[in-house]
Amino acid sequence: QRQATNGRATLDHGREWMDKLGWTGNFTAEVGRGSAERRGREFSDSEVYKLIEAMSWETGRQADPARDTEIAELTTMIAGAQAAGGYLHTAFGRPGQQARYGDLAWGHELYCAGHLLQASVARARTSGDDALLNVARRVADHVCEEFGPAGRDAVCGHPEIEPGLVELFRATGEQRYLDQAALFVARRGRRTLPRHEFGWSYFSDDIPVREAKVLRGHAVRALYLAAGVVDLAVETGDDELLETVAAQFDRTLARRTYLTGGMGSRHLDEAFSDDFVLPADRAYSETCAGIAAIMVAWRLMLATGRERYADVIERILYNVVATAIGDDGRSFFYAHTLHQRSLTAVLPGDVEQLGFGGGPRAPWFEVSCCLANTARMLASLSTYVASVDDDGLRVHQYADADIDTTLADGRRVGLRMRTGYPDDGTVGFEVTAAEPGPWTLALRLPAWAAGATVTLNGEPQSATGDRVVLRRDFAVGDRIVLALPMRPRFTRPDPRIDAVRGCVAVEQGPVVLCVESVGGELDLDSLRVDAGTDPAADGGVTVRGVAEELPERPWPYADAGPVGQRTTLDVPLVPYHRWARSGPSTMRVWLPTT
Amino acid sequence: QRQATNGRATLDHGREWMDKLGWTGNFTAEVGRGSAERRGREFSDSEVYKLIEAMSWETGRQADPARDTEIAELTTMIAGAQAAGGYLHTAFGRPGQQARYGDLAWGHELYCAGHLLQASVARARTSGDDALLNVARRVADHVCEEFGPAGRDAVCGHPEIEPGLVELFRATGEQRYLDQAALFVARRGRRTLPRHEFGWSYFSDDIPVREAKVLRGHAVRALYLAAGVVDLAVETGDDELLETVAAQFDRTLARRTYLTGGMGSRHLDEAFSDDFVLPADRAYSETCAGIAAIMVAWRLMLATGRERYADVIERILYNVVATAIGDDGRSFFYAHTLHQRSLTAVLPGDVEQLGFGGGPRAPWFEVSCCLANTARMLASLSTYVASVDDDGLRVHQYADADIDTTLADGRRVGLRMRTGYPDDGTVGFEVTAAEPGPWTLALRLPAWAAGATVTLNGEPQSATGDRVVLRRDFAVGDRIVLALPMRPRFTRPDPRIDAVRGCVAVEQGPVVLCVESVGGELDLDSLRVDAGTDPAADGGVTVRGVAEELPERPWPYADAGPVGQRTTLDVPLVPYHRWARSGPSTMRVWLPTT
Repeated sequence: QRQATNGRATLDHGREWMDKLGWTGNFTAEVGRGSAERRGREFSDSEVYKLIEAMSWETGRQADPARDTEIAELTTMIAGAQAAGGYLHTAFGRPGQQARYGDLAWGHELYCAGHLLQASVARARTSGDDALLNVARRVADHVCEEFGPAGRDAVCGHPEIEPGLVELFRATGEQRYLDQAALFVARRGRRTLPRHEFGWSYFSDDIPVREAKVLRGHAVRALYLAAGVVDLAVETGDDELLETVAAQFDRTLARRTYLTGGMGSRHLDEAFSDDFVLPADRAYSETCAGIAAIMVAWRLMLATGRERYADVIERILYNVVATAIGDDGRSFFYAHTLHQRSLTAVLPGDVEQLGFGGGPRAPWFEVSCCLANTARMLASLSTYVASVDDDGLRVHQYADADIDTTLADGRRVGLRMRTGYPDDGTVGFEVTAAEPGPWTLALRLPAWAAGATVTLNGEPQSATGDRVVLRRDFAVGDRIVLALPMRPRFTRPDPRIDAVRGCVAVEQGPVVLCVESVGGELDLDSLRVDAGTDPAADGGVTVRGVAEELPERPWPYADAGPVGQRTTLDVPLVPYHRWARSGPSTMRVWLPTT
Repeated sequence: QRQATNGRATLDHGREWMDKLGWTGNFTAEVGRGSAERRGREFSDSEVYKLIEAMSWETGRQADPARDTEIAELTTMIAGAQAAGGYLHTAFGRPGQQARYGDLAWGHELYCAGHLLQASVARARTSGDDALLNVARRVADHVCEEFGPAGRDAVCGHPEIEPGLVELFRATGEQRYLDQAALFVARRGRRTLPRHEFGWSYFSDDIPVREAKVLRGHAVRALYLAAGVVDLAVETGDDELLETVAAQFDRTLARRTYLTGGMGSRHLDEAFSDDFVLPADRAYSETCAGIAAIMVAWRLMLATGRERYADVIERILYNVVATAIGDDGRSFFYAHTLHQRSLTAVLPGDVEQLGFGGGPRAPWFEVSCCLANTARMLASLSTYVASVDDDGLRVHQYADADIDTTLADGRRVGLRMRTGYPDDGTVGFEVTAAEPGPWTLALRLPAWAAGATVTLNGEPQSATGDRVVLRRDFAVGDRIVLALPMRPRFTRPDPRIDAVRGCVAVEQGPVVLCVESVGGELDLDSLRVDAGTDPAADGGVTVRGVAEELPERPWPYADAGPVGQRTTLDVPLVPYHRWARSGPSTMRVWLPTT
């Protein structure tokens, strides 16, 4: 359902706004000659590329000749804007514009190139059309020339070229693309970018990649870089580099990540803060950082085999990505607060938002990276469901799917998965294709799923650790049923997270719940819950709570706290990803305890 | 001691840097003609004016002919930069510059003018020198012409002209200055400034002054405006306006102010946040907002007689202003965190800081408003000590002072005050001049000072409420001793302040204490204190506590909290204003309880 809405409404919506705001028009000859004004911010080219990437994944998911034609037309337009030497960016180097690479810190030239490379690989993988790939090769050749060992000793202020180059290497086999990615990674952290009030950490340029212990600075920048570093480590067989970036990501998960999987807690610089600084009411948790974290987690899962990274992907999908987009596919959260104190506003549907945070989903932002990023994630969701390793088939995410793939040894296997997950914890599998001989079917057991059970053709199987491992000579028609416990549960934060001390959250399966007050009738900040009584789940989820009407005091600090009139009540909870869909409301995820 | 350091080191330091960075040089003819480059940000003129204001208060406090000469030279320089019609700003309207008032949102033209007006009044009040006042009158005449009823229907993005105009009205009796201030106040809140991602609230331009319920947006902007509004209400006898702004300030104190009296909790827009959003670890609490809040509190105290506003002044003086400045008078905090998680950095003494927060005191900032603002506050401190009302003499702040003043009815009174406050709670007074007939001596009783005692010539007197009121026919030699209880005490926050739930702070008299770990040996985030055992005060202040070494966990959220090795210890506290004076350290004001 979400993918269908994405494939039609969101992609059309993105195209309409990018046309309206001139972001596609920037590629035309008029703008190229300087006879028409270039519009949008310096990174708007990348939004067009991400939209094409989303369209490409979508046409791969479901054939759509009209969309194919649209991609071809956009590709022709983009190719037309490419300079003779391969350089391609609509905001630099043309009549009346700043010189190429004159502002590496903020110009986003290599960043846009990186997104073009990723889009071209997505297009090539999901179609027989190499037109965009050919544009991308010329861009990459130019980058290798300009920034190669004999070229500029510099990096881009916004990482993204790194994963782009490695992906293009994979698609083309061109070694120099991989070498160039390695060079960019080696240069990062040498403070070649100019001094800025946000510090070099903002650009991940403060500490060399191999020496850093944790992700820091601008969250999307840090995560795109990490994704590229994993790609590089895998392709070069550099296990030390792989474990370095895995350790950085692990520490980020342990100390700098919201319950939702969201990353980045500062509005000022859209950045990670110090360890355990995770305010709910000023959470930044940018949509794009969620998507970038999925990119990193998926790469690490494939590279290390560690199932817990698939837990991270699930958490972000259900609590960041699912939250980001409106039911109509045409409105978006840029940032994801975990505590809305004042009523969300009502936004007009035809005005772009200038700010990022605090409001409801908006149709468009001046910096509208979240739309195209969400679209490419949703269109490519199926790629995160399962993987094949030397032992057999692994299922990582639970959703209706028909898997038809080839094991490492060449045998074909088929698996049908049917489930109402995450509304329901039962996941049914049926083997639909199998060739003789044993192989392993591994099913992820989320860390929260203690007490899960599994049966194979009715026989109970062991279900402990981070996955169910079933090894046998599977036959077509074999049935497996995985039952994950979906009772709602209280979750307590690390005591070092000052912002939510003395609070609990409620989770149900992979879904973080919240209390929402549509219209603001219930003062959520007067609420405390009884964490000694388990949440009830008859119909909807509720917890026992107390609302306390606190007296007004002229100064909020005293030798004793205020005492007010208390009312006992059952507090209903809803999935966090459903909030702000029914008009102005207040909301909190973390609930103070009695 | 602090005033002496300010009067010499800080004023010299400010002058040196402003010369070095060209901020004074901007007033020279070369820059005026465009033959030399103008340097600094668009508000740098105001720093020169604030420095002159500080110098003026200082020469009033302690005669200094060399400084008088310096002020006269600076005045001549400034007068030379004034345009024929009275306009004065070094960044606009000259060859190669943007047109006058071409950027009201960010240009700071009227803001700078407001500071010039304040400086000129300070100079006129503390000397016989009207040279700067004459420059200011011409500026004000120009502003009244340009922005009068028939002029531009606009306000400045940064309030400050409003209090400046009222002060100039008071000094000159020129009614049109008061009328112009009223016009600016009436125009504010009509959204005449352009749309910005920070919202109109940033400029206090979202809601008309008479309709707003609380201070919001950029803290310094909101507070400077409030100061001007009180001035206006007093001079026009508009009690409704006075009570409106008092209610806004009261609600700000009740819901949007740090324990230190600091205001503003957002780094992004240097702004007030929603009610009760007061994170310790990302406190903004800008030095200038503290000074601006003192300006508002003092005006409200005088206008309403309410002693509690003097409590606010005391709180800010001891916990924001005293914290802001280094012992040498040459380094400053721009922002005031209440929780330093990672070790403060070591800053070079000769480099200006680009960023505002997180670091130790710095010699200079790109935006260096805090230095000159602190300097003018310290130089004028004595003006906040006492006031005269219809009943007699009121003492608001306790410090060594010799008060010699005239009552409302013309009688002269003298009072000598001697104290070691706030290190010691005993304040001794001796009447040094008195004329026949009864009058009232009122001594502020801070809200925290339950149990205070007072004697008059050895006889105990009643000491309840917000002040001690002694009415009699005082004789020279009468002695009063006020004893304020200075035992350290635990303070608990309003439960709606999520950021410090489950924590206590320790205060001693008006001084907020903190735990500091120089070198970071003690992990402050592992610390919990026993709030059931009163703080001890033998020698230094200590509290009973537990340090718990928490285990590493891959994910910081679980059904139960982590349990680690616990060590009982006595935790020493120091005044918050003393922190970060002994090398890199970590610090916290709010301490989680066991």
